Amino acid sequence: MDFSLIRRDFPILNESINGKPLVYLDSAATSQKPRQVIDAIKAYYESSNANVHRGVHTLGSRATEAYEAARNNVAKFLNAKSDEQIVFTRGTTESLNMVAHGYARPRLKPGDEIVITPMEHHSNLIPWQQVAKVTGATLTYLPLQEDGTIDLCNVEKTITARTKIVAMVHVSNVLGTINPIADVARIAHRHGAILVVDGAQSVPHMPVDVQALDCDFLAFSGHKMMGPTGIGVLYGKRAVLEQMEPVHFGGEMIEVVELYESTFKEVPYRFEGGTPIIAGAVGLSAAIDYLKEIGLSAIHERDVALTAYAYDRLRAMDEIEVYGPAGERGALVTFNLRGVHPHDLSTALDAEGVAIRAGHHCAQPLMRWLKQSATARASFYVYNTERDIDTLIDALTMAKEFFSHAIG
Amino acid sequence: MDFSLIRRDFPILNESINGKPLVYLDSAATSQKPRQVIDAIKAYYESSNANVHRGVHTLGSRATEAYEAARNNVAKFLNAKSDEQIVFTRGTTESLNMVAHGYARPRLKPGDEIVITPMEHHSNLIPWQQVAKVTGATLTYLPLQEDGTIDLCNVEKTITARTKIVAMVHVSNVLGTINPIADVARIAHRHGAILVVDGAQSVPHMPVDVQALDCDFLAFSGHKMMGPTGIGVLYGKRAVLEQMEPVHFGGEMIEVVELYESTFKEVPYRFEGGTPIIAGAVGLSAAIDYLKEIGLSAIHERDVALTAYAYDRLRAMDEIEVYGPAGERGALVTFNLRGVHPHDLSTALDAEGVAIRAGHHCAQPLMRWLKQSATARASFYVYNTERDIDTLIDALTMAKEFFSHAIG
Repeated sequence: MDFSLIRRDFPILNESINGKPLVYLDSAATSQKPRQVIDAIKAYYESSNANVHRGVHTLGSRATEAYEAARNNVAKFLNAKSDEQIVFTRGTTESLNMVAHGYARPRLKPGDEIVITPMEHHSNLIPWQQVAKVTGATLTYLPLQEDGTIDLCNVEKTITARTKIVAMVHVSNVLGTINPIADVARIAHRHGAILVVDGAQSVPHMPVDVQALDCDFLAFSGHKMMGPTGIGVLYGKRAVLEQMEPVHFGGEMIEVVELYESTFKEVPYRFEGGTPIIAGAVGLSAAIDYLKEIGLSAIHERDVALTAYAYDRLRAMDEIEVYGPAGERGALVTFNLRGVHPHDLSTALDAEGVAIRAGHHCAQPLMRWLKQSATARASFYVYNTERDIDTLIDALTMAKEFFSHAIG
Repeated sequence: MDFSLIRRDFPILNESINGKPLVYLDSAATSQKPRQVIDAIKAYYESSNANVHRGVHTLGSRATEAYEAARNNVAKFLNAKSDEQIVFTRGTTESLNMVAHGYARPRLKPGDEIVITPMEHHSNLIPWQQVAKVTGATLTYLPLQEDGTIDLCNVEKTITARTKIVAMVHVSNVLGTINPIADVARIAHRHGAILVVDGAQSVPHMPVDVQALDCDFLAFSGHKMMGPTGIGVLYGKRAVLEQMEPVHFGGEMIEVVELYESTFKEVPYRFEGGTPIIAGAVGLSAAIDYLKEIGLSAIHERDVALTAYAYDRLRAMDEIEVYGPAGERGALVTFNLRGVHPHDLSTALDAEGVAIRAGHHCAQPLMRWLKQSATARASFYVYNTERDIDTLIDALTMAKEFFSHAIG
């Protein structure tokens, strides 16, 4: 696989930033889009655009076929048993809120426990705080080990008969930790709990097989996997989807509407109230085709190699503190330059064309665990190269020099 | 204004359907998109794509500026007092659900009344059924007059001190009725109730000034006004937005997140949890620019002329029943060919390249009021011409002939 050819598919990578070629190291926030995805959206609007499911005219059929073909493509991509297990949402956040408010909220009661980890993104944390508050259920945190990983012995101890829901990120967006989802699922199921997985950072980067993982729900976003903004997915096992109540009421999701009562369509349509995000689904499907063409295993291997290279080079620098486990990890490295706020560091790198993220990464409890108010994060995708990382290190070296004078 | 030039901006209007030129008469379901909108989305992904609000790098700033400029463009378009009154949502349905679940649900109690009309789209009906069920509030229907309009005397009688919320469509998606929103707002406010307006069919087609209407909430979708799918707006007065609780919890909308408690950002950001629909907002903004270039008054006048022409020609046909009021109305005509199911009729018209909608139009209670199980609907936008309507009438005449033999 010649990864250097991939860059040609991404028009934005030709941009200059402050007179320097763009080095985009922020794909964990949102990925860039290949022309294949941009063209698919354009083609949809130019030749198939119509509302779906309702029309009997040709454009309506074309749009419906495109939308349902996208659902089928997602189902196959995840190795789901059927298309009906795929709910299109706006993104990971909406998917997780749907589970919290549609599945958990109506069934949890005082004494029940929701188990989460301190490395959750706010999207897989605040919905559970809210559900706990409303239902009287208890929020319980799994402890982290010193290197930012989870110990299965702790999982065994924390999940009990009181546990109804375990919610866990697959790959941490800060630490890069890859959690042992299949093992956690086994333990959760032994106690009659379900497992909700935040796949925002895993689905774009590695083969994710929902049957092998045996998770009950899986949430992810299109925009982090080369697809458009505003589209995401909630996968669910048939049984839990059947038990989940709709949270968006309106057109498309109803069976019969009387003046004071209504009945709703079967799964998954009852969860997709209103005009769906049709072009978004088409764009996501094109992104899946693009990722499959490269191959998810190849993408993961490439991520691992790039990340290891970045990790090693950053660790070798004085005054740079690197967070998260060594070894195989998600496609990102989080770090700080001692004594310099990561916002200032990010601004300095931007002057060299290098785009990294700085802040709490929507994981404030994890920041407290790290004893940092904020961190810098460089994240990678298959369009990145070792050269990008060299540019990052060079820019960091210059920034270090600059700040040492500024501080000194 | 030479309206024939407008057609050139819409690539899809060059499509052939079953060997005939496409005549698209389904804009009330979703509008077609001009190349200006398609190009704006493409340009965003090719030169500015990044996540918003969180980054300090250049692309992040570009994306944030584009997203917030879109918010400002929407605010000006509606004559809202400030940008902070504009919440980006997935569409009308999500906007109305947000009001129902975030504003109404936490504050209604048994004895309170929600007043709606029998001409509401399911999106402005089922959320209120749900809120009534959960809170014990009562759902009260305003009666319709025989021609499908609302009588202000009935509004005066129906809205009382018990009324907390009045929810009303601005322009009916079936009857074409234009409701007297400013008058209803005055009556609602006199009783201390708020007015929630479904603007899905009005905002794309006529000047809508939220200060002149004095509505408390206004919901609409981008995809019906030449914008992309998956983006919509909830406008709210500052006071009611401040009282509304968030319904999507996650990144972007928080202030401080502790392990068991969180605080949320100011309005409107607290309502936009998760990565926003950035490219969708950019596309909607381009659509607004396009509509403003033509002028909303010019669009409305053109709609009125086209609709009157279609209404008169349809009324002149034997065996065709036309529904809804005469005179100024929304850009659509709903009808039936006696003895023929509208699905069959729509299929027959599709053979001639004419795309109309057939069904209950997400308004089942209104279908019962019309004593029809379904209807056909032709809907118009500025890219339609009198010639399109002539083709509709010719195709209808052929279909009538065909079905009279088939039935006879």
